[in-house]
Amino acid sequence: MVPVVSIVGKSDSGKTTLIEKLIPELKRRGYRVGAIKHDAHRFEMDHEGKDTYRHFHAGADTVVISSAEKMAMQKRVARQLTINELVEQFVNDVDIVLTEGYKSADKPKIEVFRSAVHSAPLCTDRDNRIALASDVDVDVSVPRFHIDDAVAIADFIETTFLKK
Amino acid sequence: MVPVVSIVGKSDSGKTTLIEKLIPELKRRGYRVGAIKHDAHRFEMDHEGKDTYRHFHAGADTVVISSAEKMAMQKRVARQLTINELVEQFVNDVDIVLTEGYKSADKPKIEVFRSAVHSAPLCTDRDNRIALASDVDVDVSVPRFHIDDAVAIADFIETTFLKK
Repeated sequence: MVPVVSIVGKSDSGKTTLIEKLIPELKRRGYRVGAIKHDAHRFEMDHEGKDTYRHFHAGADTVVISSAEKMAMQKRVARQLTINELVEQFVNDVDIVLTEGYKSADKPKIEVFRSAVHSAPLCTDRDNRIALASDVDVDVSVPRFHIDDAVAIADFIETTFLKK
Repeated sequence: MVPVVSIVGKSDSGKTTLIEKLIPELKRRGYRVGAIKHDAHRFEMDHEGKDTYRHFHAGADTVVISSAEKMAMQKRVARQLTINELVEQFVNDVDIVLTEGYKSADKPKIEVFRSAVHSAPLCTDRDNRIALASDVDVDVSVPRFHIDDAVAIADFIETTFLKK
């Protein structure tokens, strides 16, 4: 099973920005990286009018578009798939997966906390939080990194999950 | 292996429009339907600025977004995947797959031909063409349907691939 680390935090804490820095840092080190985002709303990935959009909105259960460089897929599901199901079926060809969100799943979590936006972190010690990335010093029982220090956080991810 | 039918034809012949009619017609009959589009260009399925767009453009090899209703994925590939690879990995949970394009693949093909736009069909008898959907009568050795008669074409697909 591919190791999974969840990047969690309250809304607007900077989860996407941190992931956006971690991915190239991990890629630079030679790892293949997957990213999974939890969506609680109704996302619309495709562009209205495109052929794939028309196929999907005509009722197709799954649509795929494939080129020599990449492929994309949309699939209707009967229920929210778990992280493990998504990784096993669709992201099994990478070295590590970062998820954005999925606080309630049981994967190890790095919390992003910005005191400029929120007064307290999201997680408690029961949330399997393995590190905190924050803009201020916080008294926590796990390693703490500066929110902008993607190199140190990538070091931590590498040591914890990739060089065991 | 899920049966695959390729809807082929010259540019602007009406392939997407026919697929858009066939999908609900097949769904109405109780079948699960997948659609695969061949892209020769550089498609951009996602919307600039969205989290998944940022993950992918940060260099992720695969990005996924997952909700309770659907999931979407983009994956970098080293080469164009074949129809069989796409079906086996990503569209193996349907009763039939319609592809848009893939004239050079070896799947059975229904050609869409509009005399209002082109002077001659795309396929020859060597292209594994099993039917023609056209706006005029054409002398061909395979069943011919009117381009707008999605019910008759769905009947043909059902008889040929789904009720064997």
